[in-house]
Amino acid sequence: MRYCIGVDLGGTNIAIGLIDLDSKIILHKKSIKTNAPRPCKEISEDIKNVCLALCHDERIAISDVEWIGIATPGIVKSGVVVSAVNLGWTNEHFGDIVREITGRPTYVANDANAAAYAEAMWGCGVGEESLIAVTLGTGVGGGIVLNGKIWEGFNGCAAELGHMVIVAGGRHCGCGLRGCLEAYCSATALVHETRRMMKLYPDSIMWDIAKGDITRIDGRTAFEANKRNDMAAHQIIDDFVNYLAIGIANVINIFQPSVVCIGGGISGQGEELMKPLRDRLKYTSFGTKDSRTRVEAAVFRNDAGIIGAGLLGLMEDK
Amino acid sequence: MRYCIGVDLGGTNIAIGLIDLDSKIILHKKSIKTNAPRPCKEISEDIKNVCLALCHDERIAISDVEWIGIATPGIVKSGVVVSAVNLGWTNEHFGDIVREITGRPTYVANDANAAAYAEAMWGCGVGEESLIAVTLGTGVGGGIVLNGKIWEGFNGCAAELGHMVIVAGGRHCGCGLRGCLEAYCSATALVHETRRMMKLYPDSIMWDIAKGDITRIDGRTAFEANKRNDMAAHQIIDDFVNYLAIGIANVINIFQPSVVCIGGGISGQGEELMKPLRDRLKYTSFGTKDSRTRVEAAVFRNDAGIIGAGLLGLMEDK
Repeated sequence: MRYCIGVDLGGTNIAIGLIDLDSKIILHKKSIKTNAPRPCKEISEDIKNVCLALCHDERIAISDVEWIGIATPGIVKSGVVVSAVNLGWTNEHFGDIVREITGRPTYVANDANAAAYAEAMWGCGVGEESLIAVTLGTGVGGGIVLNGKIWEGFNGCAAELGHMVIVAGGRHCGCGLRGCLEAYCSATALVHETRRMMKLYPDSIMWDIAKGDITRIDGRTAFEANKRNDMAAHQIIDDFVNYLAIGIANVINIFQPSVVCIGGGISGQGEELMKPLRDRLKYTSFGTKDSRTRVEAAVFRNDAGIIGAGLLGLMEDK
Repeated sequence: MRYCIGVDLGGTNIAIGLIDLDSKIILHKKSIKTNAPRPCKEISEDIKNVCLALCHDERIAISDVEWIGIATPGIVKSGVVVSAVNLGWTNEHFGDIVREITGRPTYVANDANAAAYAEAMWGCGVGEESLIAVTLGTGVGGGIVLNGKIWEGFNGCAAELGHMVIVAGGRHCGCGLRGCLEAYCSATALVHETRRMMKLYPDSIMWDIAKGDITRIDGRTAFEANKRNDMAAHQIIDDFVNYLAIGIANVINIFQPSVVCIGGGISGQGEELMKPLRDRLKYTSFGTKDSRTRVEAAVFRNDAGIIGAGLLGLMEDK
């Protein structure tokens, strides 16, 4: 059997999984607190100890693990964490440190990039040349995988797809600019629009779903009401999909990737989101007559970080 | 001496140059009529004959030419011309055909991509990891060079940077959509805005420059009047630069390339365009504190096609 370990380092928890590369499953996983900010060396020691515990539980030696892959927040370039505000790190040679204390080859990538890599290798991009991931969560994130490799940009800051401006002079975005995709297609933006429309339409079914309490809504509320033919909800979803289609069409017209993968909480809507999105993209994205980018919902959910991290070792063969 | 041949196949002319790879110069060039539409085989024969004539003039054998590179209009994927409307071609194995009749290794790329490759290898991207070219001409084109290789997309249609939507619901674009970068930052758009503003401002210096004839203006008129402190021209250039900065910031935030290269006729304005563009980008593009994308005017003009085509053979070593 061929093993690797994937580490999903978050601001709150570190989730670590032992992966069977042949069966393509996580055999066993453990989670510890991050307790950030802490020195890179300390967190690396904790990671090593969990790796040893996982190996012990599965009765294998750490030397049987082909490599360790780590997904971390922040800016990463070639295994170096250039900057990770949540962890309090600057220019940490994280990969080298973990390699030294574990004795195993170690690879590091930004967490959004690692999640995209999971989809590219074992998710909706299996066997394809390229995949761009667009993650619709609290913010809008992205990951670029071309020819089986993550594209980090020359400084590690690439794939900020959420801050692509699609409406010059449009809605204010948290980044300080205006008109970013994130200001239209994040869960945050969707909740904001849902509240705005509920105030305009007191008869909307959305009030029933929220049991009369406007604070009880989330990114699902408008989708749920739309299924029940609520006019206000329909307008919210229609706008949401139209703006998202503009952003995705831009991505397609720039990269012409084999696959665009839509992830994040909102992608859980499945075909309620994907069908109108695909319909809209027929008119707004280019391609040849016989060959157009596939647009798919993400396959992986909570395990995307562990799996994407674990698979980073595959990148070396490319 | 190491030689290659670059072929710039256009809808009207075919320009072919013998390149000295050591001195990095075009030693000798010739041009013939394309007479499109014509079969791929016929054009390939003409190309072969000009290649032989160039070699004869320079007293070398065709076997001394390391490779032939061709820049062609249309959609190209891996040396196959998938579609080239101007030439009347569909799925032509152009590279294979020229290789067979010349006996030399032959590489083919789309013309905008080849021009970007010229800048990446011998122009403003020398020694850099990546370069994105944005060409401001009649339309707005693009080319993507990552790790020394052209990114064509899985179907050959990538790098349509001019049809990135930056103003949802904005100006009509020739492609049928609205709000594309091309509708704001092409020479065509600039001329359109110049005429519109001249009609609004009968006292503008632009009328003097045009000698009172609104049909006598071009993409330089507003830049020229702006230098002479004309208010109407200032507004045209200010808008032009702001929209261009949005498009370029999107490109930077997506790719974080080492270099963005601005080409096309309008880039001939040099610092009149580049300085306000760079100033604006400081606020609209991301990067690390110490490491930001360089934004430069293109080095090559008319010879970009020949040189970019000629250098395609270098891509094989990557």
